[in-house]
Amino acid sequence: MEMEEQVELVGRAFVDHYYHLFDNDRASLSSLYHPMSLLTFEGEKIQGVEDISRKLNQLPFDQCVHIISTADAQPSAPTGGIMVFVSGSLKLPGEEYQLRFSQMFHLIPTQHGSFCVQNDIFRLIYG
Amino acid sequence: MEMEEQVELVGRAFVDHYYHLFDNDRASLSSLYHPMSLLTFEGEKIQGVEDISRKLNQLPFDQCVHIISTADAQPSAPTGGIMVFVSGSLKLPGEEYQLRFSQMFHLIPTQHGSFCVQNDIFRLIYG
Repeated sequence: MEMEEQVELVGRAFVDHYYHLFDNDRASLSSLYHPMSLLTFEGEKIQGVEDISRKLNQLPFDQCVHIISTADAQPSAPTGGIMVFVSGSLKLPGEEYQLRFSQMFHLIPTQHGSFCVQNDIFRLIYG
Repeated sequence: MEMEEQVELVGRAFVDHYYHLFDNDRASLSSLYHPMSLLTFEGEKIQGVEDISRKLNQLPFDQCVHIISTADAQPSAPTGGIMVFVSGSLKLPGEEYQLRFSQMFHLIPTQHGSFCVQNDIFRLIYG
């Protein structure tokens, strides 16, 4: 299925790009959001590229490494967008244990043939 | 924010309804899907209410209890839909340990003023 493969490829490329930026150049994540983007981070609701960028850049750790366990993608009718669902763990410097997390993104197409984040929900997974 | 509260309420009501049906009357979950619905269950892709219903009803356990830890909801522009993101655990009969899971739904409005599931991605969380 060509469409299905394309969705998988775009989803996977997004996941690689997003967490690479997060771990190496977090300020650049702002390029992936737009003024109507929504982030729910551990239950806190944030809207718009500026506030989302501020939140991500003010997290209480400077360095981190995301290790991705699973990344699933589906087409999002009728927007031409893509749903991305990620599970993985987060390694912080000096911490012995990794934090498990799960995160979903709704990507929507831009006028420039690319995708940006419309919805982003992040949760740490305990227990 | 009235719209935000409404989205939270609908998301929460969906979560309660979905897992209540799953745990007590799993065959009735088919009422929440439609012919174009997509389910990715532990990486396996399934489309359409019939195949999704068959998959859910043929899982290798008859009884289960979902315990919900978090449920986040966001509006899904421009569809008038709702994103729902759930984390929790699954208790199977005779098993000492609960299985952690995370799941996302994209709900879209129906012609009857209700919502149905357009996208559903489920993953068990290990580690």
